[in-house]
Order: sequence, then C-alpha cells, then structure tokens
Amino acid sequence: MDNAATTEIHENVLKEMIPFLKEHYGNPSSMHRLGRVSNKAVKKVRKQIADLISAEPEEILLTSGGTESNNTVLYGITHANQGNHIITSSIEHEAILEPCKKLEKEGFEITYLPVNREGLVNPEDFKQSIKENTCLASIMFANNEVGTIQPIREISKICQEKKIFFHTDAIQAIGKVNINVKGLGVDLMSISSHKINGPKGVGALYIRKGIPMEPFIVGGGQENGLRSGTENVAGQVGFGKACQLAKENLEKNIIHFKNLRDTLVSKVLEEIPHVTINGHPEKRIPSNAHFSFLGVNGEDLIIKLDEEGIAASTGSACSVKTQKESHVLKSMGFSHDQITGSLRLTLGTSNTILEIEKTVITLKNVVEELRKVSPLKSKYNFN
Amino acid sequence: MDNAATTEIHENVLKEMIPFLKEHYGNPSSMHRLGRVSNKAVKKVRKQIADLISAEPEEILLTSGGTESNNTVLYGITHANQGNHIITSSIEHEAILEPCKKLEKEGFEITYLPVNREGLVNPEDFKQSIKENTCLASIMFANNEVGTIQPIREISKICQEKKIFFHTDAIQAIGKVNINVKGLGVDLMSISSHKINGPKGVGALYIRKGIPMEPFIVGGGQENGLRSGTENVAGQVGFGKACQLAKENLEKNIIHFKNLRDTLVSKVLEEIPHVTINGHPEKRIPSNAHFSFLGVNGEDLIIKLDEEGIAASTGSACSVKTQKESHVLKSMGFSHDQITGSLRLTLGTSNTILEIEKTVITLKNVVEELRKVSPLKSKYNFN
Repeated sequence: MDNAATTEIHENVLKEMIPFLKEHYGNPSSMHRLGRVSNKAVKKVRKQIADLISAEPEEILLTSGGTESNNTVLYGITHANQGNHIITSSIEHEAILEPCKKLEKEGFEITYLPVNREGLVNPEDFKQSIKENTCLASIMFANNEVGTIQPIREISKICQEKKIFFHTDAIQAIGKVNINVKGLGVDLMSISSHKINGPKGVGALYIRKGIPMEPFIVGGGQENGLRSGTENVAGQVGFGKACQLAKENLEKNIIHFKNLRDTLVSKVLEEIPHVTINGHPEKRIPSNAHFSFLGVNGEDLIIKLDEEGIAASTGSACSVKTQKESHVLKSMGFSHDQITGSLRLTLGTSNTILEIEKTVITLKNVVEELRKVSPLKSKYNFN
Repeated sequence: MDNAATTEIHENVLKEMIPFLKEHYGNPSSMHRLGRVSNKAVKKVRKQIADLISAEPEEILLTSGGTESNNTVLYGITHANQGNHIITSSIEHEAILEPCKKLEKEGFEITYLPVNREGLVNPEDFKQSIKENTCLASIMFANNEVGTIQPIREISKICQEKKIFFHTDAIQAIGKVNINVKGLGVDLMSISSHKINGPKGVGALYIRKGIPMEPFIVGGGQENGLRSGTENVAGQVGFGKACQLAKENLEKNIIHFKNLRDTLVSKVLEEIPHVTINGHPEKRIPSNAHFSFLGVNGEDLIIKLDEEGIAASTGSACSVKTQKESHVLKSMGFSHDQITGSLRLTLGTSNTILEIEKTVITLKNVVEELRKVSPLKSKYNFN
C-alpha cells in the first residue's frame, strides 16, 4: 500500500531488461555491432516513452530519475533563457523546491504559490504572480502526498499567453491519468520509471521541440548533448517497456485503482471514527488515499501496519527520515493533530480487493490500539 | 577488445542484482520492511566499494555514473569553498573538461596542463601552475585513450602541502591497478560500475571525510543530503558486487591483462609494419594497448574489424560520434597521420589468448587491405 514510494518491476519489464544485462552490453556510443544494438534499443525506448505522453521521440531526454529531470529543468531553462523570476507552488516535491533554493542563492526570485485546503493552486493567483522577468513556471501535475491534481491546462494557457516556459512534475501522475503533452500545453514534463513498475535509476524529461536548454550534466555529449554519461541501457529498456505497458493498460488500471480506492475510503470512513480524508475529493489521482487519524501518530501507525505485513507511509518516502512536519499538509492549512495522524495509502496494479479488506481491518485494530494509549485520548473522547 | 568503453556484467553480479529487480523492490527511504531491506543492501554496497579502494563506507557517495561523479566534484567543491582557480590536464575526459568550461563561464579560471609525448603531466609544471586562489586540482588517474598513468602520488603531495583539494578521475584505472586512496593521498576520486563488469547507470565518488561539498543534484536529501533521488538499488547492488570481485581478483586480473596485452603488442609490432605503440611504455594500465597504423583510417579499421567480429575503438566511445580529432592525441603532439590511424584495443577479464591471436591476424589482413587503397600509399612506400 505504498506504491507512490516505488513499485515492483513488472515481469515483462524485467524480461525485456535481461538481454541488456547479459549479452547486449554494448555502449550505445560505440561504432561496432555491440554498440549499435544498444543504440537501437535506446531509440526504441524514446519512442515508447513518447507514445505514453503523445510526444515525439526526439522530445524525450533520458535521465537517471525524476529528481535529475527536475534539477535539469530548473538549471537548464534558467541558464539558457532571460529572466530571473520563477513561479512554483508551496507543495512541490523537494526535487523542485531544493533546486529553487539553489537558484535563489544565484539571485533568482521564486514565488511559492499557496494552495487551498484541498491542495489546489488557484490559477488566478498564478496569473497575478507573473512578472516582467518571469522565465519559468513549475507546477506539479499531482501531489505526491495527497494526490491532488492541479489545473494544469488552465495554467498552461496563461503561460502560453504570457510566453513563460511551463514545466510540470508528473512523476506521480504518469500511468494514473491520461497525459497528452500537446493537448495539455506543457513545455516540459518530468516522469520517472520506478513509479510505473519500471526499474529505479531511470527517468525522463519531455522537452518540447525548440525549447532552449542548457545541459545540467555535461561531458561526452550523449543525449544529443543534453545529458552526458554512458546510457543505463538496461534500465532504459525497462522504462520503455513500463511505459508501453502503462499505455496499453491505462484504462484498465484507472478502473482498478478507482475501485480499490473507493472501497478503501468508504470502508475506512465506515469503520474508523475521527478520521478525515485529505486532498481534493475528485481532482485526484485514483491510486492515492490520504487520511488523518486524529490522536494517532502516523509513524506508530506505519510501524504497527508493517508488523502486520502492510507497507504504508506518512507522506513522501523521500523526506520521511528528516522527521519534519509535511510542508504539503502545512501549506494546506492542516492542524498539528491532522498532520501527526496522517497516513498515505497508495495502490499498485497488483493490489487486490482482499488486500484492501485486510488493510481496513488491520488499520481499525491498530488505530484503536494506539488511541487507547494516546495522549490525546481525553481531547477526542476516545473510549 | 573494447572493454574501456564498457564491460559485460559478471554473472555473479547479475545474480546479486536479480532479487532487487524482483521481490526486494523497496525504496530505501521507506520506514517499512521492504524499505529497510533496500536500505541495508545499499549500506553493504558502500562497504564493498570502500573496501576496493581502502576508504571508509561513509566516504562513498553513490551516483548515476562516472560522469555525474565528475560533475559533482567540480560543482560541489568549487561552490562550497573559497578560490576560483582550478588545475586540470589537457587530456582529461570530457566529463572533466566540459564541467570546467561551465565553471569558466561562471568566472572560474582553469589551467589545462600540457602532457608530454607519453601523455604524462609533469609534477613540476603542476607545482608552477598553483596560484593563491587555486581551490581544486583534478588530474585523471589513467587516460581513457592511451592508458597512461599519471604521477598521482607526487601531485597529491604537492596538493597536501599547498592545501589544495585533489580529485582524480580513476574510472579507467579501477580494477586494473591497486588503488588505496589513503596511501595515494587523494581527497576525491570518481569511479564507475560498468567499466568493471558491473551494470551501467551507477558510479561513485570517494569524498575524504571532512571535505566541504555542496550537493549537485538536490531534492529529497538521499545520500546524506549529497545526492538526491531514489536510489538505483539493484544497480548499486551490482556495483558493490563488481567491486568485491574486482578486489578479490585484482592480482589475477592484472597478470591476465599483462599477459594478453604483451602478447598483443609484441605480435602487432612483429607482424605489421609502420605502426607505433602509443602512451607510456611502463606507466600504463595493463588492459590498454593503443596503436597508430600509419596510412590507415582508424574508423575504417573499426568497421572492418567489426565485420570480422572484433569490437574496437579509435579512442573514447563517448566522443566517437563527434568525429573530432582526439584532444588527447593532439595534446601528446601526435601527427595528423598518427591520430587518423589510431586504434585502441582494451582487454576484459574474459578475453583469451586465442582472441588475441585472432585479433592480430585479422588486424594484419585488414591493415594490408586498407593500405592497398590508401591515399598515403606512396608517402609510406606501401606495396
């Protein structure tokens, strides 16, 4: 139940990767046959990724993951274009917020747009924040903690009108919603392999044709000069296959996620008192359910669930070790108790309705157990 | 015969990787069991890498490859420390030279030290080039084209004395020579997995304890804040195992490489006229042989060898597609004919003496054939 953190590699993905972990080990830059086999494989990957998001293969830059894709955008666009103001939101992933901080040190000005209680950016706020020197906007497609989907099309229209490059971090959205970069009107989009049953260590950046970019990682000039370093061919082949499967199974997966998620949410609300369901009720990815169990510490919850064989998360896996309060929930105006009691359950393609039922029963017992010893027992009138 | 470009994954390396491509798919940042299994695996990897180079596990930063390691050093040291002068050599890999160019744009001054005919940097030149504001020196351990090993210990002594951070790009040296970072006196060292029978897409940077570094890729704060992004666990596990094998088999591999290389070189010189063997005669990695076949175009040579099932290279795989003359050979003062006729043959652990013999025979025939139609036929008096 922690598929937003990472997913299992699909067996057909691994099957495609194996030859590239064995006999097809060529360096795609080599002129000889071994090299050409790898080179051809990487070309196919680019097509598979492009097909998932309705882009052209030459618009796909392969990276080592979503974080590198995000770093690449923020460095690459700001260093290849005029303007020193960037608009983003206060609930972005750290892989956007931290590069923004780096740019602030370089003299860039960053506007961090607020969100409402459901985690939504207001396009009107966005429009108001635009300045003469705004060069880039980066607004995530779907939030990694609460799953809220932003009004990307509305924002892209404003950006097109104002001639501002628009990037969206779609790492949590890809494979969960139908994404067509052309229809969506985004200029740049980050995606990652290991969130859609591909291997870890591979990601991509969609760069609309003609967008001026400076390379972030430089050297031998691979990826058409935009990302140097010997290609992770096997990983890329896995990512390509994962994209192909995500495209083929998109409708089926969305229905699957929705069924499980709806069952999960309604049963939790039915079975467990003093709980809120967080994020936007409709504008959300179907694989995410985010709760606050009042009077309970989310981390205790995770440990207890883990003991029962259920993997869950309080929020982003990436920041869980810092033990900081979620900047996402804080921005959404949540109370301390709501933040402390938060639990993220995120579904994968292989989860079953039986697992959902087991999760709800276990969760009910665990929450009851923890509330018995909760310091907030009297505040919330727990029995 | 192109193992400097990349190597085949060792079967025991793949065997270690497989569980992490299947059931152990956790995100190392996750608190639950799945996450902890991955976290523990990454810790083991750090120890395996450290053991190969006599470092401490906490001195190992995991990256997506050698190029990222090199970019990280050049960005990270210069942005965390005073001084704006860097010393490097004119024969470094592009993954050093290109980040240097980037820093030049930021206002840093770079000294590119010349090399002699054998590709050696003169430590006296190095000493002379030091300035008040020198903050970093980066001199490669062994050259990727001609295999020459630099006087790293002599240079590190100078750096220690002058309190300059010293980095060495040891991507081509690792697994071919015994490297002890403490004895060597280097502060930072880049290595890569796929050059030592590990998977592509993984590398490491040795950072001596206490060296101030700014992170290059920022975000969720993985790798102790120094390299963000979900860890490529399976790839890292493979790299760790490759390091362990490289350490266990180092002596054996060195003898193996030397035997094959010596046979290769002596037979080529015996069988084929008008050929020079390039690089330093003794100060070189044992797996590299670099020739110039006068009157022949190296690229034609590679195509012909490829037709006979032999993979070779004119120089660095990374830059082969740019069709530029090798900056390494130019810096070494080679003539146009020598550069054009250059061929790099690089050995792997599974090459055999029979393959060497086949290579020499094939090479002899191919060179003869090409010389028959060479425009330089009369210049060199070919029959």
